[in-house]
Amino acid sequence: MTGNAPVHSVLPEEVTAALLVIGDEILSGRTKDKNIGFIAGHCTEIGIRLREVRVVADDEAAIVTDANALRTAYTYVFTTGGIGPTHDDITADSIARAFGVSIGVDSRAVALLRERYAEADLTPARLRLARIPAGAQLIENSVSKAPGFMIGNVIVMAGVPAIMRAMLLAITPSLRTGAKLLTDSIGVNVPENRVAVPLADCQRAFPEVAMGSYPFFEDGRYGTDLVLRSTDGARLALAKADLISRLPPDVSFSG
Amino acid sequence: MTGNAPVHSVLPEEVTAALLVIGDEILSGRTKDKNIGFIAGHCTEIGIRLREVRVVADDEAAIVTDANALRTAYTYVFTTGGIGPTHDDITADSIARAFGVSIGVDSRAVALLRERYAEADLTPARLRLARIPAGAQLIENSVSKAPGFMIGNVIVMAGVPAIMRAMLLAITPSLRTGAKLLTDSIGVNVPENRVAVPLADCQRAFPEVAMGSYPFFEDGRYGTDLVLRSTDGARLALAKADLISRLPPDVSFSG
Repeated sequence: MTGNAPVHSVLPEEVTAALLVIGDEILSGRTKDKNIGFIAGHCTEIGIRLREVRVVADDEAAIVTDANALRTAYTYVFTTGGIGPTHDDITADSIARAFGVSIGVDSRAVALLRERYAEADLTPARLRLARIPAGAQLIENSVSKAPGFMIGNVIVMAGVPAIMRAMLLAITPSLRTGAKLLTDSIGVNVPENRVAVPLADCQRAFPEVAMGSYPFFEDGRYGTDLVLRSTDGARLALAKADLISRLPPDVSFSG
Repeated sequence: MTGNAPVHSVLPEEVTAALLVIGDEILSGRTKDKNIGFIAGHCTEIGIRLREVRVVADDEAAIVTDANALRTAYTYVFTTGGIGPTHDDITADSIARAFGVSIGVDSRAVALLRERYAEADLTPARLRLARIPAGAQLIENSVSKAPGFMIGNVIVMAGVPAIMRAMLLAITPSLRTGAKLLTDSIGVNVPENRVAVPLADCQRAFPEVAMGSYPFFEDGRYGTDLVLRSTDGARLALAKADLISRLPPDVSFSG
């Protein structure tokens, strides 16, 4: 049997994302963001590379510019914030404008709100929660019903962390994912400058394994976490063994 | 006496800023950022408007592009992260490149390191901590000596929160600041859709007071914080009184 089977296994396509956090309250410091870290960790876990995060004000021009820049640069764009019922919630309208599509009260979204509210309680403010750009797919909100949505490659979610998480989990099965980034780490009992040379040497020997050095100060002692990341588990293990062999003899390590 | 004194008092110039958070570890979710919220709150407190935040990878091209985009758009750019001693710390070199200036071991920075390290301990890795772009002003690091720096309108700080805070406090007296944004708020015992109409009406009556609505869920009850912001204390107080007068009679409020 002759064949053209590749010598190397084909690597899965890289799937990338950006996150656009929308809200004056984050930029003023009034509210501490709790979504960036969660979305970053979730993306890593499911095999999506979060490449960039931007935090912008409740400003339509800024949201439109950033949404268009990011959606052409990455596989997916997640947004958080600005989809509530008040006048400062302008995300849905801004995203419709970014895509050049119309927006109005969506009957599917109204049906979801009816599961929670009596007809008489569907006030104009509540109906704002059902404004969805034309052509968008709704994202279920198991916490408070008012849905998020996905249009093109842009995933629009609430800013309230519990609701954002519910929406992120709801949309995840629809997302394309790539090779999962595997991580391993070594903790050493010295400041990072003591391991800078062996780490740089190891990085040169294993260019396909990304290596980072994260110093910490704990219980009165300096230490450093050396973190290795790769989609290739075998290379990752080899790089870790190589790095350990390069550590100075007086350095204790764990991991 | 005839004169040309302005009828309205001259408003202080607006001073703006962006923050560039540099680090793979934030984008992978391994490290939760603790600097955005602190810097945002500090800027608000001293009269600088933080307009935008970006989180980028340890990637020189990305850092150069973002640093140049932001430094031309805002009065100041703060950066955090990537100024340690290891190979993945590329912020100083990237900022030098963004400004088109050379970079090398800075004798002033070495002198600071000598306050902490014996001559024999000034290893090549530690000397990386003294790489400073030509023409930059050093920023004191009272925690661990290795300085940050300011070049043009870009302020480069460490990523470790305790060190970042020390550097931010050290550079603050050198920064130009504008009118302080004053904030007041009203807490109501209802979900935000119940106050959306009065809030929007009040916003129309006081366009110079920025108004936001932030829902919360606490002890099993929904509530909303209505936040008003302005550089004009008198208009802020009037707007607050106006908003309270517009609340539906069955709504309880505090603040």
